[in-house]
Amino acid sequence: MVCLKDARVVIVGLGLMGGSLAGDLRKRGACREVRGVARRAETIEEAMRRGFIHVGTCDLAEGVEQADLIVLATPVRTILELIPQVGSLAPAGCLLMDLGSTKARIVEAMKALPPHILVIGGHPLCGKEVSGLKAAEADLYDGATFVLTPLQRTSPEALTLAQELAEAVGARPLLMDAERHDRLVAAVSHLPYLLSVGLVATAEEMAAEDELIWELAASGFRDTSRLAASDVTMMLDILLTNRQAVGETLSCFTNQLNALAHLLEADKVQTLKLKLQTAKLKVQRPGFK
Amino acid sequence: MVCLKDARVVIVGLGLMGGSLAGDLRKRGACREVRGVARRAETIEEAMRRGFIHVGTCDLAEGVEQADLIVLATPVRTILELIPQVGSLAPAGCLLMDLGSTKARIVEAMKALPPHILVIGGHPLCGKEVSGLKAAEADLYDGATFVLTPLQRTSPEALTLAQELAEAVGARPLLMDAERHDRLVAAVSHLPYLLSVGLVATAEEMAAEDELIWELAASGFRDTSRLAASDVTMMLDILLTNRQAVGETLSCFTNQLNALAHLLEADKVQTLKLKLQTAKLKVQRPGFK
Repeated sequence: MVCLKDARVVIVGLGLMGGSLAGDLRKRGACREVRGVARRAETIEEAMRRGFIHVGTCDLAEGVEQADLIVLATPVRTILELIPQVGSLAPAGCLLMDLGSTKARIVEAMKALPPHILVIGGHPLCGKEVSGLKAAEADLYDGATFVLTPLQRTSPEALTLAQELAEAVGARPLLMDAERHDRLVAAVSHLPYLLSVGLVATAEEMAAEDELIWELAASGFRDTSRLAASDVTMMLDILLTNRQAVGETLSCFTNQLNALAHLLEADKVQTLKLKLQTAKLKVQRPGFK
Repeated sequence: MVCLKDARVVIVGLGLMGGSLAGDLRKRGACREVRGVARRAETIEEAMRRGFIHVGTCDLAEGVEQADLIVLATPVRTILELIPQVGSLAPAGCLLMDLGSTKARIVEAMKALPPHILVIGGHPLCGKEVSGLKAAEADLYDGATFVLTPLQRTSPEALTLAQELAEAVGARPLLMDAERHDRLVAAVSHLPYLLSVGLVATAEEMAAEDELIWELAASGFRDTSRLAASDVTMMLDILLTNRQAVGETLSCFTNQLNALAHLLEADKVQTLKLKLQTAKLKVQRPGFK
């Protein structure tokens, strides 16, 4: 298996994540060639113009020819469709990985691929509420945690290449099994998104009676509602492929919120204060990101 | 009644809000004198050193002597304690206002003051999750909405002086009755805070089983949990003095979140997608703050 330096890296999907990865790999001279695959010719043109890729194509078969490493960088349900297609097109010995935000379903789909295709799941934790190639930026991966979810069949060489890729763009690889990843991101990523959506919906409901509400929405509301601007296809795919863990974290959250509501209603001031202090201490702890 | 230019303005409480207001008034030469009142001598010293106030004292009686405009800039329950004290100390014809984050209870307390004290409630919407004089900053009020809640007894001259104060630091005065203010900020300010606290508590609960969760908390979690770092005394006072509206907005939010959970669980993909799109459109609308 080649090392990253000598690898032809093919990135399928040139949005925020794929585009930024391509750009950083090329800018840093991390591999032999960065090739882009996108649905629309304009995306390829823009990626070429911005110097993110050496070559690009809208044809998946052409794109994966002679690839050493293929990175699927689309929404999760598109990744699930692409895995068998890429599996039948990719050259033997090629490593297939992905950047999908949920991992169990993807790893499951990878298991079905023929043994001459090497596989590993990946999820760099540097997504944003903006999307598309126009939002792509240099150094997006710098300092980010990059989860890798190896399968039983993932060889040490395949793992090494995936780690090299993460490190080449400044990210910190973190090995974890797919189910554990999905359970944890349900709480720290999918839950915050749903809270933002619920908050905006609550304010909208109130705005129907009193439009002035938006005049009073200041920075606290902005911060807490920002995630509601995330790409809907991406988020819908995430929720649908992580339904159980999201359901569990939602009940856990609802219990926490009900507890706060009860303490307030029942005038249990000291216990309420303690809960607020505990949360404050947590987010203020040094090193808390 | 004097105009702001000729007024001696006394700010009681030199934290983020009071300190920043004092500093901006002085920097902009908006009034004759900016006087600070704080509990601790060190706070007065720091405010003097940073050029926020002309003079300062830890003695309330001394502080309000010959005042034209007194601004209470402490947490809400402290404002409620200060109102009768200041009422008995302040010179006749003086305007007493406040910067408290809830208004109904404060306006109620102001009603009880003798008629020679002029009164109006205020709430500038530029608070932050950081607190204290060290967090005070120039131009904090610039562009912010500054709610004013006049009482029946508030004279046009008193209202004009309060508006002058808001405009002097670049804020936009918005007149509203206290109950309406409290209902609206419950949804766009107090609810986001409780969601942040609940989110952090949920993640903490999960962290007890799996410490790695914090490695996966990225910018989305940070944004949505930031408000949990708010000053606990300030937030507790807000919640306790706006219990009913907070309770109502919490039920409204819980209904919204349960609806999202149900759509996901029941695989109602199109309806779920529509809800996510509606929220996205709202936060992306031009002019949405």
